[in-house]
Amino acid sequence: MTTTRFDDDEPDLDALYADLAAADLQPLWRQAGLLPPAPNRLGPHRWDGRTLRALAERAGALVGIDRGGDRRVLALSHPDLGGLPFATHTLWAAVQYLKGHESAPAHRHSPAALRFVLEGSGVWTLVDGDPIAMEPGDLVLTPGNTWHEHRSRGDEPMIWFDGLDLPLVRALDAVFFEPGPDDLTPFSPGDPCRSEERFGRVGLRPAGEAAPGRHSALLVYRWDATDAALRAQLASTGRDHARVRYTDPATGADVMPTLRAELQRVLAGGRTTATRTVGSAVCVVHRGAGSSLVGGHRVDWTAGDVFVVPSWAWAQHRADADADLFVLSDTPVIEALGLGRRAERSETEENTPMPGISRVGGTS
Amino acid sequence: MTTTRFDDDEPDLDALYADLAAADLQPLWRQAGLLPPAPNRLGPHRWDGRTLRALAERAGALVGIDRGGDRRVLALSHPDLGGLPFATHTLWAAVQYLKGHESAPAHRHSPAALRFVLEGSGVWTLVDGDPIAMEPGDLVLTPGNTWHEHRSRGDEPMIWFDGLDLPLVRALDAVFFEPGPDDLTPFSPGDPCRSEERFGRVGLRPAGEAAPGRHSALLVYRWDATDAALRAQLASTGRDHARVRYTDPATGADVMPTLRAELQRVLAGGRTTATRTVGSAVCVVHRGAGSSLVGGHRVDWTAGDVFVVPSWAWAQHRADADADLFVLSDTPVIEALGLGRRAERSETEENTPMPGISRVGGTS
Amino acid sequence: MTTTRFDDDEPDLDALYADLAAADLQPLWRQAGLLPPAPNRLGPHRWDGRTLRALAERAGALVGIDRGGDRRVLALSHPDLGGLPFATHTLWAAVQYLKGHESAPAHRHSPAALRFVLEGSGVWTLVDGDPIAMEPGDLVLTPGNTWHEHRSRGDEPMIWFDGLDLPLVRALDAVFFEPGPDDLTPFSPGDPCRSEERFGRVGLRPAGEAAPGRHSALLVYRWDATDAALRAQLASTGRDHARVRYTDPATGADVMPTLRAELQRVLAGGRTTATRTVGSAVCVVHRGAGSSLVGGHRVDWTAGDVFVVPSWAWAQHRADADADLFVLSDTPVIEALGLGRRAERSETEENTPMPGISRVGGTS
Amino acid sequence: MTTTRFDDDEPDLDALYADLAAADLQPLWRQAGLLPPAPNRLGPHRWDGRTLRALAERAGALVGIDRGGDRRVLALSHPDLGGLPFATHTLWAAVQYLKGHESAPAHRHSPAALRFVLEGSGVWTLVDGDPIAMEPGDLVLTPGNTWHEHRSRGDEPMIWFDGLDLPLVRALDAVFFEPGPDDLTPFSPGDPCRSEERFGRVGLRPAGEAAPGRHSALLVYRWDATDAALRAQLASTGRDHARVRYTDPATGADVMPTLRAELQRVLAGGRTTATRTVGSAVCVVHRGAGSSLVGGHRVDWTAGDVFVVPSWAWAQHRADADADLFVLSDTPVIEALGLGRRAERSETEENTPMPGISRVGGTS
Repeated sequence: MTTTRFDDDEPDLDALYADLAAADLQPLWRQAGLLPPAPNRLGPHRWDGRTLRALAERAGALVGIDRGGDRRVLALSHPDLGGLPFATHTLWAAVQYLKGHESAPAHRHSPAALRFVLEGSGVWTLVDGDPIAMEPGDLVLTPGNTWHEHRSRGDEPMIWFDGLDLPLVRALDAVFFEPGPDDLTPFSPGDPCRSEERFGRVGLRPAGEAAPGRHSALLVYRWDATDAALRAQLASTGRDHARVRYTDPATGADVMPTLRAELQRVLAGGRTTATRTVGSAVCVVHRGAGSSLVGGHRVDWTAGDVFVVPSWAWAQHRADADADLFVLSDTPVIEALGLGRRAERSETEENTPMPGISRVGGTS
Repeated sequence: MTTTRFDDDEPDLDALYADLAAADLQPLWRQAGLLPPAPNRLGPHRWDGRTLRALAERAGALVGIDRGGDRRVLALSHPDLGGLPFATHTLWAAVQYLKGHESAPAHRHSPAALRFVLEGSGVWTLVDGDPIAMEPGDLVLTPGNTWHEHRSRGDEPMIWFDGLDLPLVRALDAVFFEPGPDDLTPFSPGDPCRSEERFGRVGLRPAGEAAPGRHSALLVYRWDATDAALRAQLASTGRDHARVRYTDPATGADVMPTLRAELQRVLAGGRTTATRTVGSAVCVVHRGAGSSLVGGHRVDWTAGDVFVVPSWAWAQHRADADADLFVLSDTPVIEALGLGRRAERSETEENTPMPGISRVGGTS
Repeated sequence: MTTTRFDDDEPDLDALYADLAAADLQPLWRQAGLLPPAPNRLGPHRWDGRTLRALAERAGALVGIDRGGDRRVLALSHPDLGGLPFATHTLWAAVQYLKGHESAPAHRHSPAALRFVLEGSGVWTLVDGDPIAMEPGDLVLTPGNTWHEHRSRGDEPMIWFDGLDLPLVRALDAVFFEPGPDDLTPFSPGDPCRSEERFGRVGLRPAGEAAPGRHSALLVYRWDATDAALRAQLASTGRDHARVRYTDPATGADVMPTLRAELQRVLAGGRTTATRTVGSAVCVVHRGAGSSLVGGHRVDWTAGDVFVVPSWAWAQHRADADADLFVLSDTPVIEALGLGRRAERSETEENTPMPGISRVGGTS
Repeated sequence: MTTTRFDDDEPDLDALYADLAAADLQPLWRQAGLLPPAPNRLGPHRWDGRTLRALAERAGALVGIDRGGDRRVLALSHPDLGGLPFATHTLWAAVQYLKGHESAPAHRHSPAALRFVLEGSGVWTLVDGDPIAMEPGDLVLTPGNTWHEHRSRGDEPMIWFDGLDLPLVRALDAVFFEPGPDDLTPFSPGDPCRSEERFGRVGLRPAGEAAPGRHSALLVYRWDATDAALRAQLASTGRDHARVRYTDPATGADVMPTLRAELQRVLAGGRTTATRTVGSAVCVVHRGAGSSLVGGHRVDWTAGDVFVVPSWAWAQHRADADADLFVLSDTPVIEALGLGRRAERSETEENTPMPGISRVGGTS
């Protein structure tokens, strides 16, 4: 596609273009921007954590769980996506708010979902009936086509981050949705989680039993273990940042075929290597404060904030206070389809300020 | 997601909705249709072959190859996609017209492309410099990120069908494009095709040599072999229809990680089993005439026509004259991401007319 | 191969056979038994635990670690294998005895080894320099081609079970051996185990770091976790027996490409389903007492005993006291090469006594 | 394992050794040679083609096919293997001789076999009833557990090379054998080969049909195609030698999980690069004459000869007349089990004569 452009004012051409349009055809040579030099469809964006929390609480006060379609969810809608309720082209990001003693009954859908718990207590998610207690910092999976319901047995509300592959699955026209029965699944708070019982000990699995394969055999990753893994990595590498990936213990693959989940820790004063990859990511600030350089823009963040790293944008994170970023991305899709590229900035380049840095306005 | 709907006229709610919008947030419970019971975003559609051919010729007469962005391409634009030049959410379909002695210089891009030759002669496609002679019925691959140019050494024009994964790669924000040098790659019509030399004999490959892996090691599939495989399958099964899949001889996988290509033959009077699968397909009528039932609509077709089978639509093909359909689909993507479903209608059901059949208007 | 046999007394034939022999040829038709109806080369066998322990202690008193080739190892030599120091055609089984404050210096070899600790304390195995503390019930891996040394810092001796794929690797003529430096690797008892630090938390791994792949990323499996997994499995299934497999947390594969390790628990009074599989196994009685039916023979066992389950022999384990069997097998080899078969006896059959049961004499 | 050796003449030790032996135990420190520095169990060896042919003819004259256990097979028995009828530790190599109008009835076994046709005509091998016409230079597969029978409809005898993984499968105690029915399978010489019909065209396969997976979907590789692939490779590389691998067109894997088959062509005056790999190989000289340096020995060969390349022996082939070597190896086993190593001698080293070359005596 050269950039040569012509002045299309000849009448024969006008007639041709009209006839093409009437035949549901479009000439490639009038499609400027269809094939850009590199991914460019999205800028960085940040949502303010306090605002998210305040609006979730207001929604809790005003909107019943049933009115909320059984899920009281606020979707992060990237302004570059023309009004779609999506954080990136492929990723759904939202905060969900469940009040004490509320129940969100079962449904299932082909898009896969995961939850990273921000605050609260007393909630279980049941996945195909398997009860998973949720605590802050835990990652809970509700893979595609599994029945899932959320149940509070406590007095406190709980807020968690919802990540889904819905925009991708919708782009593939592969969304199936099925509401569950009206009745809630009986369970007791003391019931063990079958997924954890069978796959929750490192390197051990029931002999002769097949793992799900299409998604992780383990449906919950506890914060204590994540934190311990990060601390061990910091100690053994001596670096000021560490990163762990959540994986299927039965295959080593990502938690879902469409979603990668990682936890990035940066100690106060530390910073990560600047990298760029194909595919988009959503970062949830679980703890701490700092700023990131994303595609030449500076994004300041603090606990509770959520921000987007677009495809092929350079990204580097710096912490002012010990920080934990939960990072959700579509990397497994990019890799499975052979579309991956990655670059890393050398140390020397890193010491040079990135040119043209501007601050990303958010919603605060 | 229950279907309960409320009348949202309370002032507090209005204020909440306004504040959410200001914060780039959208409440899930006001997102009707986001999670439909099943894929439903596209209807069937047909483009008329004579119209395609006539408009391609007019474009050939009016628009120089350079003016055409180096590619004289008419993109099939599905009316359900709001003006995008795409045949389905994931598939680009087009006809390309190259006049005798024209040259379309090299470029490369991350989206993968394939060509199914409809008519003409005397053209070579060079893939990373490897010259591939093109004849009607041949399938030629230009995988993602390979340099490719099209070169006519004959007097006749050539028309071929272009299939790409561009809509998908764009949805992933993973498009890279790079124009090539102005100079054309030297080659002689007698030059052997290195891809065919190395991987063009069944079950044999250069010892100790790695295959590309990300796409087929073989870049061209000759019509004679395809035709012979179909005839053998008809003979050995005794059925009135046969179907072969084009695969990577070095791995057995689909030709590209994102694209499946198959040739469906239906003898006069024959018909295929009605099936439905997740993922969309584009059918190019290479030969013959017949009709298909697609999602409850009847699509009549003849050689040169192109039509769409949307995701999860029932599809059954019937031939009035011996027919060959080249079928391009995104099935490898659906399968890699764990989103596949498939149903087949039993013989008994097949004898029952499908309810509510209506004829699909096309562009003729 | 029919069973027809001729009387080979013709002089022409005799001459032919002589000439064949002179030419290093053998006529297939004189090779009775080369292709038996089913695997039959080995019977069951048991080694007595008290005898093993007593002889290991005597070896400790009489033979210095240096005199013992740097390893004080007693190899279990199956009487059906004609004097080879192997437990089965593919598996090496042995007890190793390290006295307090002894050191077995580093070496490495292509055969893979694992250790299941029977008794003792104060020992570390260093694998490529990574110090792994060993406690009873722990499984420690020293994969093929990794440097390994054993180091006692305590006063007690330690006894462990050694399992290797040496007979297989020897049958493949693929043994490489390399002695290490004379100097011991410095380490402190408080040093963390890097393998555990990086891969020792379920479902978590260092982001962007490749796992070894050829063998487990985790080099030690702690008894506490194994025991907890077994207890959880017993509780959730309600059965009287449970079995867990040790796997590579980075891939879900077996601990080595050649070795499967499992822990079979049978509660007092319980028994397993009778099964038969292609491939041989060695069972180490870690705890308890009971008996097994193996290929029609009864094998009584108690803690410390080791016994063999030959290829394709029916095997069923019964416990008189809560029992734990560490089971080492070559199943990954059988499966990788497409040679697997498996049968399971139905409940009804199980209640029928196996015909022709005879007691397996061991070494006690 | 250090090389320190002691004089074991103490009476206590003698008593210990006696008690160990009585308990079916062997002290590792008395096992010299168990862990050699590198594979060393086999030397090179050559069988003379004229001798093979003459003895096969004599067997044909003296031994009926039924007397020959339904297979008139002369097994190549490596003198280093102590009388076992095996060419290497893992590979069975033999010549089979079928007279005109003879039939070798069906049987099946878990070891996999392949046939490389040396001379003759008029023979079909039926694999699970699928008739495969055999011509000189063809490679025919009879995978593990498939019924196979050999049927002559011509007047000429046929001689072919048999390669099996029998020694390996026997070492794994995984041999199953089953005689077939006495009646021969009806077939007509004009019957098509179903395997070729379905998988015999490059890059094309029946849509939606599963391939066997455990072995090649294609059961015969025709000499014409092999020859053409070699000629193309010579032309495009400009080298004096070429090598193709026979692979499963449905997966790209080796023809069997246990066997690799390749055809090595060396033009007169040419020579290959000297390489060494773990795993053993058998080379069948299909055409031409030359010599190979194998593990420091010189092996002269001419059409019809068969010779062994032992594990980890350096091997380099030189041709005096255009030569084709059919090479069978156990490399897929070595690779699947993670035991592979490979070295290549640089050009400079290649020009240096290998030290200590001695001529390998064969059977002529």
